[in-house]
Amino acid sequence: MRPSGRTPQQTRPVTITRNFTAHAEGSVLVEFGDTKVLCTASFEEGVPRFLKGQGKGWVTAEYGMLPRSTHSRMGREAARGKQSGRTQEIQRLIGRSLRAAVDLSLLGENTIVIDCDVIQADGGTRTASITGACVALVDALNWARAKGILKTNPLKHMIAAVSVGIYKGEAVCDLDYPEDSAADTDLNVIMSETGKFIEVQGTAEEAPFSHEELLAMLEMAKHGIREIIDVQQAALN
Amino acid sequence: MRPSGRTPQQTRPVTITRNFTAHAEGSVLVEFGDTKVLCTASFEEGVPRFLKGQGKGWVTAEYGMLPRSTHSRMGREAARGKQSGRTQEIQRLIGRSLRAAVDLSLLGENTIVIDCDVIQADGGTRTASITGACVALVDALNWARAKGILKTNPLKHMIAAVSVGIYKGEAVCDLDYPEDSAADTDLNVIMSETGKFIEVQGTAEEAPFSHEELLAMLEMAKHGIREIIDVQQAALN
Amino acid sequence: MRPSGRTPQQTRPVTITRNFTAHAEGSVLVEFGDTKVLCTASFEEGVPRFLKGQGKGWVTAEYGMLPRSTHSRMGREAARGKQSGRTQEIQRLIGRSLRAAVDLSLLGENTIVIDCDVIQADGGTRTASITGACVALVDALNWARAKGILKTNPLKHMIAAVSVGIYKGEAVCDLDYPEDSAADTDLNVIMSETGKFIEVQGTAEEAPFSHEELLAMLEMAKHGIREIIDVQQAALN
Amino acid sequence: MRPSGRTPQQTRPVTITRNFTAHAEGSVLVEFGDTKVLCTASFEEGVPRFLKGQGKGWVTAEYGMLPRSTHSRMGREAARGKQSGRTQEIQRLIGRSLRAAVDLSLLGENTIVIDCDVIQADGGTRTASITGACVALVDALNWARAKGILKTNPLKHMIAAVSVGIYKGEAVCDLDYPEDSAADTDLNVIMSETGKFIEVQGTAEEAPFSHEELLAMLEMAKHGIREIIDVQQAALN
Amino acid sequence: MRPSGRTPQQTRPVTITRNFTAHAEGSVLVEFGDTKVLCTASFEEGVPRFLKGQGKGWVTAEYGMLPRSTHSRMGREAARGKQSGRTQEIQRLIGRSLRAAVDLSLLGENTIVIDCDVIQADGGTRTASITGACVALVDALNWARAKGILKTNPLKHMIAAVSVGIYKGEAVCDLDYPEDSAADTDLNVIMSETGKFIEVQGTAEEAPFSHEELLAMLEMAKHGIREIIDVQQAALN
Amino acid sequence: MRPSGRTPQQTRPVTITRNFTAHAEGSVLVEFGDTKVLCTASFEEGVPRFLKGQGKGWVTAEYGMLPRSTHSRMGREAARGKQSGRTQEIQRLIGRSLRAAVDLSLLGENTIVIDCDVIQADGGTRTASITGACVALVDALNWARAKGILKTNPLKHMIAAVSVGIYKGEAVCDLDYPEDSAADTDLNVIMSETGKFIEVQGTAEEAPFSHEELLAMLEMAKHGIREIIDVQQAALN
Repeated sequence: MRPSGRTPQQTRPVTITRNFTAHAEGSVLVEFGDTKVLCTASFEEGVPRFLKGQGKGWVTAEYGMLPRSTHSRMGREAARGKQSGRTQEIQRLIGRSLRAAVDLSLLGENTIVIDCDVIQADGGTRTASITGACVALVDALNWARAKGILKTNPLKHMIAAVSVGIYKGEAVCDLDYPEDSAADTDLNVIMSETGKFIEVQGTAEEAPFSHEELLAMLEMAKHGIREIIDVQQAALN
Repeated sequence: MRPSGRTPQQTRPVTITRNFTAHAEGSVLVEFGDTKVLCTASFEEGVPRFLKGQGKGWVTAEYGMLPRSTHSRMGREAARGKQSGRTQEIQRLIGRSLRAAVDLSLLGENTIVIDCDVIQADGGTRTASITGACVALVDALNWARAKGILKTNPLKHMIAAVSVGIYKGEAVCDLDYPEDSAADTDLNVIMSETGKFIEVQGTAEEAPFSHEELLAMLEMAKHGIREIIDVQQAALN
Repeated sequence: MRPSGRTPQQTRPVTITRNFTAHAEGSVLVEFGDTKVLCTASFEEGVPRFLKGQGKGWVTAEYGMLPRSTHSRMGREAARGKQSGRTQEIQRLIGRSLRAAVDLSLLGENTIVIDCDVIQADGGTRTASITGACVALVDALNWARAKGILKTNPLKHMIAAVSVGIYKGEAVCDLDYPEDSAADTDLNVIMSETGKFIEVQGTAEEAPFSHEELLAMLEMAKHGIREIIDVQQAALN
Repeated sequence: MRPSGRTPQQTRPVTITRNFTAHAEGSVLVEFGDTKVLCTASFEEGVPRFLKGQGKGWVTAEYGMLPRSTHSRMGREAARGKQSGRTQEIQRLIGRSLRAAVDLSLLGENTIVIDCDVIQADGGTRTASITGACVALVDALNWARAKGILKTNPLKHMIAAVSVGIYKGEAVCDLDYPEDSAADTDLNVIMSETGKFIEVQGTAEEAPFSHEELLAMLEMAKHGIREIIDVQQAALN
Repeated sequence: MRPSGRTPQQTRPVTITRNFTAHAEGSVLVEFGDTKVLCTASFEEGVPRFLKGQGKGWVTAEYGMLPRSTHSRMGREAARGKQSGRTQEIQRLIGRSLRAAVDLSLLGENTIVIDCDVIQADGGTRTASITGACVALVDALNWARAKGILKTNPLKHMIAAVSVGIYKGEAVCDLDYPEDSAADTDLNVIMSETGKFIEVQGTAEEAPFSHEELLAMLEMAKHGIREIIDVQQAALN
Repeated sequence: MRPSGRTPQQTRPVTITRNFTAHAEGSVLVEFGDTKVLCTASFEEGVPRFLKGQGKGWVTAEYGMLPRSTHSRMGREAARGKQSGRTQEIQRLIGRSLRAAVDLSLLGENTIVIDCDVIQADGGTRTASITGACVALVDALNWARAKGILKTNPLKHMIAAVSVGIYKGEAVCDLDYPEDSAADTDLNVIMSETGKFIEVQGTAEEAPFSHEELLAMLEMAKHGIREIIDVQQAALN
């Protein structure tokens, strides 16, 4: 029933390549099937003005799509002179989620900047971004510990994300672009490795969804995220 | 336990004043306690370029806060030359939700522009905005029907919204600012009058939330929204 | 002869509602007939860079129109990314006029930011803004004195404003929108309660105006402003 | 008493050089003493969108200061990415004034764009700009008549401008920078060659001004403008 | 003598990977040692306004660096709201060079948009971009010929680029970052496969360079480009 | 053969007028035939942030064209809100070239800002700008020495620039607009008075150029620049 032939619960193959580029403290290429995102984590001294002097750190994120990561070329945001509402919505989501993974008071007055740049898009770029960014974040934290900048590990727990939805009347996990563009409902779920929710964002694209449909989707998300966290941990070991 | 002395389920007094200003086709002042938002609906001929020639209409929204709607003055977005990520996130949510309330194919090639301007903020401005905007939308649709521009009513169902959250370990409904700024979890729920979900957005502000907490919050939201829809309908009759 | 049936000298009913919103140090809704403007005065510590270290304060103003304050919807300036020339011209006028009402050396290194947001427009928004803003300013100064931040009152004198013009060949006072859009000449006059001029801005919209017409308009403005200052003072008592 | 040794009524030497640059339909260097402004008038086919199809023309203006036209270097507006409020206020004034000099219905669907670029500033740049721009405008209109584009002359009357003010308690005409920066009151007056007012803009910089002071300044402006119009006409003959 | 141990004439290993991403008509990852640039060519119907109706096509380019392609993180241009002067200079160079490779009159009213996004930077990003972009351009032209959109091949000749410079007093070819940042002179050379110059850009970074040094650098560039064109052609076969 | 009747080697008459405006530390009007550029050099205390505390100075440049310096009016960059890529490319070139003329370590922590504003354009505005700016720079340095701000002269050598090109198959020197818009190749050469290259920028506008053509153009540039440096030195004596 799914265009890809997957079972409803089946996620796409998830691949995580660490040290994909040379300069960043954490650099991860994450692939959810044909969706490929380069996630880097930059460890920088100092914090934004509103946090100065509180002894706490900060984690923030930026997101972008290369102009030809999509079927038809998207205008370059740098050339248009502003980031779209969609871009801002996504990067706020990524930053908020990763802050929930870190004990900011153990980070000192340092900032970790996450950059998620979509090299190739086939649906689910925001969930792939969060999943990859968490690994890059861990690498950056470990870099800082190895350098002696951090004494203790500020990581509270790993987080990972997946999208689920109602496609042709049935709940499915990890939508690709053909499914995503035809789905009735789209739900992005971000969870910690401890099995709790970090963020739940569900939208009725075509038709309102029922309580039962929501429960079915959440169940599917939990299984999918558990598998994805296994991939993260395998990559880190 | 709540700063306002309300019971956990209790919403703030919700007031809807129609025809608050003179020029818009729909003009509503909505109040959720001390949160006051002016919602106007403007009926305009024509549609954005990407819809031209398809015989369908469009609903879109913009959101703003008056600089001194908040405790300390916020910089005016028009003066800074751009809308914040938060503003864009909220206005995208409002527009998406209201499009779910309308059969765009019955709207003809017309656009309804919703403007939600916060006069005074005390938490829950996005859920108040959606609630008020839906009434303004109905007024604008009725205006177009009275003018003979629309033959049939494009409204599919009313929608309303409320925020729920985990505050001091307990689920509470319709958070005001003191609760919102101290909550562990914040969940915005938008539902149709038919009892289905339009949008669910939950964020772990402090601590990840469990499946049980999510269910408890959703239950509370359903009750709250039912009451708010009663206020909408009373205002329209 | 006037569309509203007023006599040439007659101003519209002027209403001033203090404490219209909760958070600002001064918050006034001013109404000149159907023109309604929310004026807030925010008392902030510190001064702009060019004044630092001089022991003097500053008063500045920003102006905006809600998108649907007008007959047809105006694009939101925050979304377009810049303030129009008209907006900047008006907010410079408001700021300049109110600075003339205050002894800045008695304000200490503090800034009062005036925000004038037009809720509903029917001509004369800039003169209504100045009139309302002066009352909000007084409230903010009194707030600072009550708090002990200011020892002496920096207010030099109240100011108020009215527009006059040549409409159908005759001088008229306090033009509403139908008059304003058809007037030959438009003159905005701002005066102090001591009967002196703060600002005089006259523009030949259709035909140049004579010395005699200018004198007639100024005479009318003086009477109008005297009445408006009475309304300000009644509101403050 | 005046820093320049001039009598109160005395204007600075006014010089008008036509055809200062080669490409524009009208190109004038205007000098009011040490204030030097290059004013060009460009005749362009077509009108802004809001005028299309009405058979009328348009006159508009832009104003700029070269970065080092002033004592200390001003940031280049093109580099900062926006025009200041002052710039916008001035260019709106120039455009409005010149539209009052032209019968737009005789201009056909053509636009005249006035550019006033300050080469060297010593006070009074806006009044010099208007004075020079009117001559450039006449040259551009004559160019269009010589080309056969215009059958009749759309010029209604020449206009010219001067600033007057209260300096050390006395009315003076055509303020230079040392006077301008110390004046109590500054009044810009724009008049037609028929002796009527196009625009009057008076501002109390330091102290409110009385009715008598206003009359004295207007009287002085009339004499000054009469002399300046003589210089314009000599330049055109 | 060179930090990398290369001989003065020796270029870094150049690798060209076609079809690096899935959606673009041409997609090439080019590597000059540790410098890695993703170059895509998008074939789009239509031309910019200034070319409409002339039956000719257009080639244009945009360039960007991922924020963490460099040693320390660079601010994202999309977030800052404008492209730097350096970015604009480089993308103008890329577009101009590739237009010289194409007979625009054989392209029909179509546009090829080149995007060069630097994944990892180690000096020479502009010359690597041009080299990779030319291969992506060929793939896009071949795609259009296979689709029947183009009847004849608009390619006039391949082009490739290399940087040369004076490093520690001696001419060297294909500078990496340590050399580039210490060089006295930097010369970017772009040539066609026919051995002629498309663009020559030499800059004295530290000391002016002599005619003899220029000749020595040009000679070195010719050899380097010949090798690089061999790599391009191997990749295309 | 040349539209102007000049011989291939012949430059246009070059004129340099110092002290063209009153306020800048260096102010030069440079004319290359009908191309006229006002170049000012502003001496300012302090350096950009990236140089603070190093005891070195900085030289930077900005470039602009007056809207009607060209045949048809160009949009004002300040009004459009950004500088074009061409403008940025040119001002970077001017700044880079002049930095090569100055020993920045002898400048102290001071900045010289060069502004080149094109009053009238007829080809070669960037080479005229550099030529005139160098004289303005010398005046500003001499001003600082006369004031005692600088003890020693930071000038390393004068620089000057000329454009050469291949026009109708033959190398020509100092292209005017008719030649420039029809040339096959355009080469901008900047040299020091010591006969060495500061910058060489050659572009194949129509056809790639050969090594022999490059040598012929460079030869012509050398002669042209020598003459232009003579004009600079005559102006300074």
